Amino acid sequence: MTVQKTYAPPPGMAWNVLSGTCPSRTSLARIANKWTAMIVAVLADGPMRFRDVRAALEGISAKVLTETLRDLERDGMLTRTAYAEIPPRVEYELTPLGLTLLEPLTTLIRWAELHIPEVLAARDAYDDR
Amino acid sequence: MTVQKTYAPPPGMAWNVLSGTCPSRTSLARIANKWTAMIVAVLADGPMRFRDVRAALEGISAKVLTETLRDLERDGMLTRTAYAEIPPRVEYELTPLGLTLLEPLTTLIRWAELHIPEVLAARDAYDDR
Repeated sequence: MTVQKTYAPPPGMAWNVLSGTCPSRTSLARIANKWTAMIVAVLADGPMRFRDVRAALEGISAKVLTETLRDLERDGMLTRTAYAEIPPRVEYELTPLGLTLLEPLTTLIRWAELHIPEVLAARDAYDDR
Repeated sequence: MTVQKTYAPPPGMAWNVLSGTCPSRTSLARIANKWTAMIVAVLADGPMRFRDVRAALEGISAKVLTETLRDLERDGMLTRTAYAEIPPRVEYELTPLGLTLLEPLTTLIRWAELHIPEVLAARDAYDDR
C-alpha cells in the first residue's frame, strides 16, 4: 500500500514566508541565495559537470558548491546523474521546477550588475559620513 | 575641490557576478537573501519602525535585523531616519533604488509560497531514497 502524502498548509492557513515556522521560508532561503542564482544561470544552457560548474563560478569552494548542489537537488531544482563510465562522469541539470527560477534569478543578477555603480557610490557615501 | 569618483568596471571589462572579485557579486549577495526579500516586501507599503519590521518578520533576531537593515542602508536600498522625539522614533523606508527590487523579490517570495508543496515532496523523495 502506498500512502499518498499531501502537502498542504494547516487548515485555515496559507503558506506564508513571514511566518517563522512556515516551510516556505526554508524554500525562500534556498532560492534567495547568491550561489543558487549563479548555479541556475550557469545551468540554463544544459547539463554540466561539477568541475565545469565550479570553473564558471569563480571563487566558489568545492565544499560550498557540493553542499549547494545537494541542497538544490534535495529541493527538486536539479538532478544529479552519475554515468557508469571510466573515468566516472557526473552531470547536473535543472529540472522543470528549477527552470522556473531562471527568469527571476537572472533578473537579480542583472540588477546587481546594472546597479553596482549606484551601490558602490552609496557605500562610499555611507562610509564617509 | 571635489573629486568626482566614477564607478566603472576596469577598462575592457564588464561587471560580472561570475567573476570572483567583481563587486557586483557582493551586491548580488545582499539582494539574493531571504531577509532582504522579506524586508523589501514589508517596507513596500511605506516607512516603518524597527519594532514593526521585526514583528512582521516573525522569528528574526534583533541582531540579524539590525545588521541587515544597516547593510541595506549602506548599499543605498533604504534610509534610516531618526526623529528627535521623546521617546525617540526611528523609521526605515525604501529608497527609489530599493523599490526597484520589490518586483523581483516578491516574485521569489511568491515562488516559495507557490511551489513549497513540490519542494516538500522532493525533499521527502530525496530523504527516502
